[in-house]
Amino acid sequence: MVRADAERNIEAILAAGQRLLSGDPGASVAEVAKAAGVGRVTLYGHFPSREDLVAAVLTRAIAEADQALDDPELATLPAPDALARLVSSSWEILNRHSRLFIAADRTLPTERIRERHAEPLKRVEGLIERGRESGDFRTDVPVSWQVSSFFALLHTAAQEVEAARLVGGEAGGVLVTSLRSLLSARSPSAG
Amino acid sequence: MVRADAERNIEAILAAGQRLLSGDPGASVAEVAKAAGVGRVTLYGHFPSREDLVAAVLTRAIAEADQALDDPELATLPAPDALARLVSSSWEILNRHSRLFIAADRTLPTERIRERHAEPLKRVEGLIERGRESGDFRTDVPVSWQVSSFFALLHTAAQEVEAARLVGGEAGGVLVTSLRSLLSARSPSAG
Repeated sequence: MVRADAERNIEAILAAGQRLLSGDPGASVAEVAKAAGVGRVTLYGHFPSREDLVAAVLTRAIAEADQALDDPELATLPAPDALARLVSSSWEILNRHSRLFIAADRTLPTERIRERHAEPLKRVEGLIERGRESGDFRTDVPVSWQVSSFFALLHTAAQEVEAARLVGGEAGGVLVTSLRSLLSARSPSAG
Repeated sequence: MVRADAERNIEAILAAGQRLLSGDPGASVAEVAKAAGVGRVTLYGHFPSREDLVAAVLTRAIAEADQALDDPELATLPAPDALARLVSSSWEILNRHSRLFIAADRTLPTERIRERHAEPLKRVEGLIERGRESGDFRTDVPVSWQVSSFFALLHTAAQEVEAARLVGGEAGGVLVTSLRSLLSARSPSAG
Protein backbone atom coordinates (compact mmCIF):
# COMPACT_ATOMS: atom_id res chain seq x y z
CA MET A 1 0.00 0.00 0.00
CA VAL A 2 2.78 2.42 0.96
CA ARG A 3 4.73 1.34 -2.12
CA ALA A 4 1.65 1.86 -4.32
CA ASP A 5 1.27 5.39 -2.90
CA ALA A 6 4.92 6.12 -3.61
CA GLU A 7 4.61 4.88 -7.19
CA ARG A 8 1.48 6.95 -7.72
CA ASN A 9 3.23 10.04 -6.33
CA ILE A 10 6.30 9.51 -8.51
CA GLU A 11 4.15 9.13 -11.62
CA ALA A 12 2.14 12.26 -10.71
CA ILE A 13 5.37 14.23 -10.14
CA LEU A 14 6.93 13.11 -13.42
CA ALA A 15 3.76 13.79 -15.42
CA ALA A 16 3.37 17.25 -13.85
CA GLY A 17 7.10 17.93 -14.32
CA GLN A 18 6.93 17.02 -17.99
CA ARG A 19 3.86 19.20 -18.52
CA LEU A 20 5.22 22.24 -16.65
CA LEU A 21 8.81 22.11 -17.93
CA SER A 22 7.55 21.71 -21.51
CA GLY A 23 5.81 25.07 -21.12
CA ASP A 24 8.38 26.89 -18.96
CA PRO A 25 11.95 25.55 -18.80
CA GLY A 26 12.40 27.50 -15.55
CA ALA A 27 9.46 25.87 -13.70
CA SER A 28 10.35 25.44 -10.02
CA VAL A 29 10.24 22.31 -7.86
CA ALA A 30 7.50 23.98 -5.75
CA GLU A 31 5.35 24.53 -8.85
CA VAL A 32 5.79 20.89 -9.92
CA ALA A 33 4.87 19.64 -6.42
CA LYS A 34 1.74 21.80 -6.40
CA ALA A 35 0.66 20.67 -9.89
CA ALA A 36 1.27 17.03 -8.90
CA GLY A 37 -0.81 17.45 -5.74
CA VAL A 38 2.04 16.36 -3.43
CA GLY A 39 3.94 18.20 -0.71
CA ARG A 40 7.46 19.52 -1.33
CA VAL A 41 8.82 17.16 1.33
CA THR A 42 7.31 14.21 -0.57
CA LEU A 43 8.79 15.45 -3.84
CA TYR A 44 12.25 15.96 -2.31
CA GLY A 45 11.99 12.46 -0.79
CA HIS A 46 11.90 11.04 -4.33
CA PHE A 47 14.02 13.67 -6.13
CA PRO A 48 16.57 15.27 -3.77
CA SER A 49 17.45 18.11 -6.19
CA ARG A 50 15.90 19.95 -9.12
CA GLU A 51 18.62 18.38 -11.26
CA ASP A 52 17.42 14.88 -10.27
CA LEU A 53 13.83 15.83 -11.09
CA VAL A 54 14.73 17.29 -14.51
CA ALA A 55 16.85 14.20 -15.30
CA ALA A 56 13.96 11.85 -14.39
CA VAL A 57 11.43 13.84 -16.45
CA LEU A 58 13.86 13.78 -19.39
CA THR A 59 14.30 10.00 -19.09
CA ARG A 60 10.52 9.53 -19.13
CA ALA A 61 10.05 11.79 -22.18
CA ILE A 62 12.85 10.03 -24.08
CA ALA A 63 11.34 6.60 -23.35
CA GLU A 64 8.05 7.83 -24.88
CA ALA A 65 9.92 9.33 -27.83
CA ASP A 66 11.78 6.10 -28.43
CA GLN A 67 8.46 4.27 -28.82
CA ALA A 68 7.38 6.81 -31.42
CA LEU A 69 10.62 6.23 -33.37
CA ASP A 70 9.90 2.51 -33.66
CA ASP A 71 9.06 2.62 -37.39
CA PRO A 72 9.29 -0.74 -39.22
CA GLU A 73 9.61 0.99 -42.62
CA LEU A 74 13.03 2.37 -41.64
CA ALA A 75 14.58 -1.07 -42.16
CA THR A 76 13.15 -1.47 -45.68
CA LEU A 77 14.13 1.93 -47.15
CA PRO A 78 17.60 2.64 -48.63
CA ALA A 79 19.80 4.15 -45.92
CA PRO A 80 19.72 7.79 -47.22
CA ASP A 81 15.89 7.75 -47.39
CA ALA A 82 15.64 6.06 -44.00
CA LEU A 83 17.96 8.74 -42.63
CA ALA A 84 15.75 11.55 -43.94
CA ARG A 85 12.73 9.84 -42.37
CA LEU A 86 14.48 9.30 -39.02
CA VAL A 87 15.73 12.91 -38.93
CA SER A 88 12.23 14.22 -39.66
CA SER A 89 10.48 12.11 -37.04
CA SER A 90 13.20 12.77 -34.43
CA TRP A 91 12.95 16.50 -35.07
CA GLU A 92 9.15 16.43 -34.85
CA ILE A 93 9.37 14.82 -31.41
CA LEU A 94 12.21 17.06 -30.18
CA ASN A 95 10.41 20.19 -31.42
CA ARG A 96 7.31 19.16 -29.46
CA HIS A 97 9.45 18.74 -26.32
CA SER A 98 11.90 21.53 -27.10
CA ARG A 99 11.37 23.56 -23.93
CA LEU A 100 11.90 20.42 -21.85
CA PHE A 101 15.19 19.96 -23.68
CA ILE A 102 16.06 23.63 -22.98
CA ALA A 103 15.31 22.97 -19.28
CA ALA A 104 17.61 19.93 -19.39
CA ASP A 105 20.36 21.91 -21.16
CA ARG A 106 20.21 24.59 -18.44
CA THR A 107 20.36 22.02 -15.66
CA LEU A 108 22.42 19.02 -16.80
CA PRO A 109 25.83 18.62 -18.46
CA THR A 110 25.52 17.63 -22.15
CA GLU A 111 27.08 14.24 -21.38
CA ARG A 112 24.29 13.41 -18.90
CA ILE A 113 21.66 14.41 -21.46
CA ARG A 114 23.35 12.23 -24.07
CA GLU A 115 23.53 9.20 -21.74
CA ARG A 116 19.74 9.31 -21.41
CA HIS A 117 19.42 9.05 -25.21
CA ALA A 118 21.11 5.63 -25.36
CA GLU A 119 18.04 3.90 -26.88
CA PRO A 120 17.22 6.39 -29.67
CA LEU A 121 20.95 6.75 -30.42
CA LYS A 122 21.12 2.97 -30.96
CA ARG A 123 18.57 3.40 -33.76
CA VAL A 124 20.70 6.16 -35.31
CA GLU A 125 23.84 4.04 -34.99
CA GLY A 126 22.21 0.99 -36.61
CA LEU A 127 21.04 3.08 -39.56
CA ILE A 128 24.44 4.76 -40.03
CA GLU A 129 26.18 1.37 -39.94
CA ARG A 130 23.81 0.07 -42.60
CA GLY A 131 24.54 3.11 -44.79
CA ARG A 132 28.29 2.64 -44.35
CA GLU A 133 27.99 -1.02 -45.39
CA SER A 134 25.88 -0.16 -48.44
CA GLY A 135 28.42 2.47 -49.53
CA ASP A 136 25.93 5.32 -49.14
CA PHE A 137 27.57 6.88 -46.08
CA ARG A 138 31.19 7.87 -45.66
CA THR A 139 33.50 5.61 -43.67
CA ASP A 140 36.50 7.94 -43.24
CA VAL A 141 35.26 9.22 -39.87
CA PRO A 142 34.22 7.07 -36.85
CA VAL A 143 30.60 5.86 -36.56
CA SER A 144 30.50 7.25 -33.01
CA TRP A 145 31.34 10.70 -34.39
CA GLN A 146 28.53 10.46 -36.94
CA VAL A 147 26.07 9.44 -34.20
CA SER A 148 27.21 12.34 -32.00
CA SER A 149 26.95 14.79 -34.91
CA PHE A 150 23.35 13.66 -35.49
CA PHE A 151 22.58 14.24 -31.80
CA ALA A 152 24.42 17.59 -31.72
CA LEU A 153 22.79 19.07 -34.85
CA LEU A 154 19.28 18.07 -33.77
CA HIS A 155 19.75 19.71 -30.40
CA THR A 156 21.40 22.75 -31.99
CA ALA A 157 18.28 23.15 -34.12
CA ALA A 158 16.14 23.18 -30.95
CA GLN A 159 18.37 25.90 -29.48
CA GLU A 160 18.26 27.90 -32.73
CA VAL A 161 14.46 27.80 -32.73
CA GLU A 162 14.36 28.79 -29.02
CA ALA A 163 16.72 31.73 -29.75
CA ALA A 164 14.54 32.73 -32.78
CA ARG A 165 17.48 32.32 -35.17
CA LEU A 166 15.64 29.55 -37.04
CA VAL A 167 11.92 29.15 -37.79
CA GLY A 168 10.49 25.92 -36.35
CA GLY A 169 8.83 24.98 -39.64
CA GLU A 170 12.13 25.28 -41.57
CA ALA A 171 14.24 23.30 -39.12
CA GLY A 172 13.21 19.81 -40.30
CA GLY A 173 14.27 20.51 -43.90
CA VAL A 174 17.50 22.23 -42.83
CA LEU A 175 18.38 19.22 -40.66
CA VAL A 176 17.71 16.70 -43.44
CA THR A 177 19.88 18.75 -45.86
CA SER A 178 22.69 19.09 -43.32
CA LEU A 179 22.77 15.49 -42.11
CA ARG A 180 22.59 14.14 -45.68
CA SER A 181 25.66 16.18 -46.69
CA LEU A 182 27.46 15.32 -43.46
CA LEU A 183 26.98 11.56 -43.87
CA SER A 184 27.05 11.10 -47.65
CA ALA A 185 29.91 8.97 -48.99
CA ARG A 186 30.33 10.94 -52.21
CA SER A 187 32.66 13.77 -51.32
CA PRO A 188 32.12 16.93 -53.39
CA SER A 189 35.55 16.75 -55.03
CA ALA A 190 35.13 13.08 -55.99
CA GLY A 191 31.45 13.45 -57.02
CA MET B 1 44.21 52.45 -4.36
CA VAL B 2 41.14 50.48 -3.36
CA ARG B 3 40.14 50.20 -7.04
CA ALA B 4 43.66 49.07 -7.99
CA ASP B 5 43.46 46.36 -5.28
CA ALA B 6 40.10 45.23 -6.60
CA GLU B 7 41.41 45.02 -10.16
CA ARG B 8 44.47 43.08 -9.02
CA ASN B 9 42.24 40.66 -7.07
CA ILE B 10 39.88 40.14 -10.01
CA GLU B 11 42.79 39.43 -12.35
CA ALA B 12 44.33 37.00 -9.81
CA ILE B 13 40.98 35.22 -9.40
CA LEU B 14 40.38 34.92 -13.16
CA ALA B 15 43.94 33.71 -13.83
CA ALA B 16 43.70 31.13 -11.02
CA GLY B 17 40.22 30.12 -12.16
CA GLN B 18 41.37 29.56 -15.72
CA ARG B 19 44.39 27.53 -14.53
CA LEU B 20 42.42 25.36 -12.08
CA LEU B 21 39.30 24.79 -14.20
CA SER B 22 41.48 23.87 -17.21
CA GLY B 23 42.88 21.01 -15.12
CA ASP B 24 39.76 20.01 -13.18
CA PRO B 25 36.34 21.11 -14.50
CA GLY B 26 34.95 20.51 -10.99
CA ALA B 27 37.38 22.87 -9.19
CA SER B 28 35.56 24.66 -6.34
CA VAL B 29 35.26 28.36 -5.59
CA ALA B 30 37.26 27.81 -2.37
CA GLU B 31 40.12 26.22 -4.34
CA VAL B 32 40.16 29.12 -6.79
CA ALA B 33 40.19 31.68 -3.93
CA LYS B 34 43.09 29.85 -2.27
CA ALA B 35 45.11 29.64 -5.50
CA ALA B 36 44.46 33.34 -6.17
CA GLY B 37 45.59 34.27 -2.66
CA VAL B 38 42.32 35.99 -1.78
CA GLY B 39 39.68 35.22 0.83
CA ARG B 40 36.36 33.59 -0.12
CA VAL B 41 34.47 36.69 0.96
CA THR B 42 36.58 38.78 -1.44
CA LEU B 43 35.94 36.31 -4.26
CA TYR B 44 32.18 36.24 -3.62
CA GLY B 45 32.21 40.04 -3.55
CA HIS B 46 33.32 40.01 -7.20
CA PHE B 47 31.61 36.78 -8.34
CA PRO B 48 28.44 36.08 -6.32
CA SER B 49 28.07 32.50 -7.61
CA ARG B 50 30.25 29.76 -9.09
CA GLU B 51 28.28 30.23 -12.32
CA ASP B 52 29.37 33.91 -12.45
CA LEU B 53 32.99 32.91 -11.88
CA VAL B 54 32.95 30.21 -14.58
CA ALA B 55 31.28 32.65 -17.03
CA ALA B 56 33.94 35.32 -16.36
CA VAL B 57 36.81 32.83 -16.75
CA LEU B 58 35.26 31.64 -20.03
CA THR B 59 34.95 35.21 -21.32
CA ARG B 60 38.64 35.85 -20.52
CA ALA B 61 39.76 32.61 -22.24
CA ILE B 62 37.66 33.36 -25.35
CA ALA B 63 39.12 36.89 -25.61
CA GLU B 64 42.62 35.34 -25.63
CA ALA B 65 41.52 32.72 -28.15
CA ASP B 66 40.04 35.37 -30.42
CA GLN B 67 43.44 37.11 -30.60
CA ALA B 68 45.03 33.82 -31.64
CA LEU B 69 42.46 33.43 -34.45
CA ASP B 70 43.41 36.81 -35.95
CA ASP B 71 45.21 35.33 -38.97
CA PRO B 72 45.64 37.70 -41.95
CA GLU B 73 46.14 34.78 -44.37
CA LEU B 74 42.52 33.71 -43.88
CA ALA B 75 41.35 36.60 -46.07
CA THR B 76 43.69 35.69 -48.96
CA LEU B 77 42.94 31.93 -49.20
CA PRO B 78 39.98 30.53 -51.17
CA ALA B 79 37.05 30.05 -48.76
CA PRO B 80 37.27 26.22 -48.52
CA ASP B 81 40.99 26.39 -47.66
CA ALA B 82 40.44 29.26 -45.25
CA LEU B 83 37.70 27.18 -43.62
CA ALA B 84 40.04 24.21 -43.13
CA ARG B 85 42.61 26.54 -41.59
CA LEU B 86 40.08 28.24 -39.29
CA VAL B 87 38.66 24.87 -38.16
CA SER B 88 42.15 23.57 -37.38
CA SER B 89 43.25 26.62 -35.41
CA SER B 90 39.90 26.86 -33.56
CA TRP B 91 40.13 23.19 -32.63
CA GLU B 92 43.72 23.55 -31.47
CA ILE B 93 42.70 26.33 -29.08
CA LEU B 94 39.53 24.58 -27.90
CA ASN B 95 41.41 21.32 -27.32
CA ARG B 96 43.94 23.18 -25.16
CA HIS B 97 41.08 24.66 -23.10
CA SER B 98 38.78 21.65 -23.38
CA ARG B 99 38.35 21.03 -19.64
CA LEU B 100 37.46 24.67 -19.15
CA PHE B 101 34.80 24.23 -21.81
CA ILE B 102 33.60 21.06 -20.02
CA ALA B 103 33.37 23.12 -16.79
CA ALA B 104 31.34 25.77 -18.66
CA ASP B 105 29.06 23.11 -20.19
CA ARG B 106 28.34 21.67 -16.72
CA THR B 107 27.59 25.11 -15.28
CA LEU B 108 26.07 27.30 -17.97
CA PRO B 109 23.23 26.89 -20.50
CA THR B 110 24.55 26.40 -24.06
CA GLU B 111 23.02 29.74 -25.08
CA ARG B 112 25.10 31.60 -22.47
CA ILE B 113 28.27 29.83 -23.67
CA ARG B 114 27.44 30.75 -27.26
CA GLU B 115 26.81 34.44 -26.41
CA ARG B 116 30.37 34.66 -25.07
CA HIS B 117 31.68 33.47 -28.45
CA ALA B 118 30.28 36.47 -30.35
CA GLU B 119 33.72 37.67 -31.53
CA PRO B 120 35.12 34.35 -32.84
CA LEU B 121 31.71 33.52 -34.35
CA LYS B 122 31.88 36.79 -36.32
CA ARG B 123 35.06 35.47 -37.96
CA VAL B 124 33.27 32.22 -38.84
CA GLU B 125 30.27 34.12 -40.20
CA GLY B 126 32.43 36.39 -42.37
CA LEU B 127 34.22 33.41 -43.88
CA ILE B 128 30.99 31.50 -44.54
CA GLU B 129 29.46 34.56 -46.22
CA ARG B 130 32.52 34.88 -48.44
CA GLY B 131 32.23 31.19 -49.41
CA ARG B 132 28.53 31.60 -50.20
CA GLU B 133 29.26 34.59 -52.45
CA SER B 134 32.07 32.75 -54.26
CA GLY B 135 29.77 29.76 -54.89
CA ASP B 136 31.92 27.41 -52.78
CA PHE B 137 29.45 27.06 -49.91
CA ARG B 138 25.80 26.12 -50.11
CA THR B 139 23.17 28.83 -49.84
CA ASP B 140 20.04 26.67 -49.36
CA VAL B 141 20.29 26.85 -45.54
CA PRO B 142 20.61 30.05 -43.42
CA VAL B 143 24.08 31.48 -42.67
CA SER B 144 23.17 31.56 -38.97
CA TRP B 145 22.53 27.80 -39.09
CA GLN B 146 25.93 27.20 -40.70
CA VAL B 147 27.64 29.31 -38.02
CA SER B 148 25.81 27.43 -35.26
CA SER B 149 26.69 24.06 -36.82
CA PHE B 150 30.36 25.09 -36.82
CA PHE B 151 30.11 26.00 -33.13
CA ALA B 152 28.14 22.84 -32.27
CA LEU B 153 30.45 20.38 -34.04
CA LEU B 154 33.60 21.89 -32.54
CA HIS B 155 32.17 21.63 -29.05
CA THR B 156 30.84 18.14 -29.73
CA ALA B 157 34.40 17.12 -30.64
CA ALA B 158 35.62 18.42 -27.26
CA GLN B 159 32.94 16.35 -25.51
CA GLU B 160 33.79 13.27 -27.60
CA VAL B 161 37.46 13.56 -26.63
CA GLU B 162 36.53 14.07 -22.94
CA ALA B 163 34.29 10.95 -23.09
CA ALA B 164 37.13 9.01 -24.82
CA ARG B 165 34.94 8.30 -27.87
CA LEU B 166 37.36 10.24 -30.10
CA VAL B 167 41.16 10.52 -29.94
CA GLY B 168 42.32 14.14 -29.52
CA GLY B 169 44.85 13.83 -32.36
CA GLU B 170 42.17 12.62 -34.80
CA ALA B 171 39.60 15.29 -33.95
CA GLY B 172 41.07 18.10 -36.06
CA GLY B 173 40.96 16.02 -39.26
CA VAL B 174 37.49 14.67 -38.52
CA LEU B 175 36.23 18.23 -37.97
CA VAL B 176 37.73 19.54 -41.22
CA THR B 177 36.17 16.60 -43.15
CA SER B 178 32.77 17.11 -41.51
CA LEU B 179 32.58 20.88 -41.85
CA ARG B 180 33.76 20.78 -45.46
CA SER B 181 30.96 18.35 -46.40
CA LEU B 182 28.42 20.27 -44.34
CA LEU B 183 29.19 23.61 -46.01
CA SER B 184 30.15 22.60 -49.54
CA ALA B 185 27.87 23.87 -52.32
CA ARG B 186 28.29 20.83 -54.52
CA SER B 187 25.67 18.39 -53.30
CA PRO B 188 26.63 14.73 -53.73
CA SER B 189 23.83 14.06 -56.24
CA ALA B 190 24.74 17.08 -58.38
CA GLY B 191 28.53 16.56 -58.05
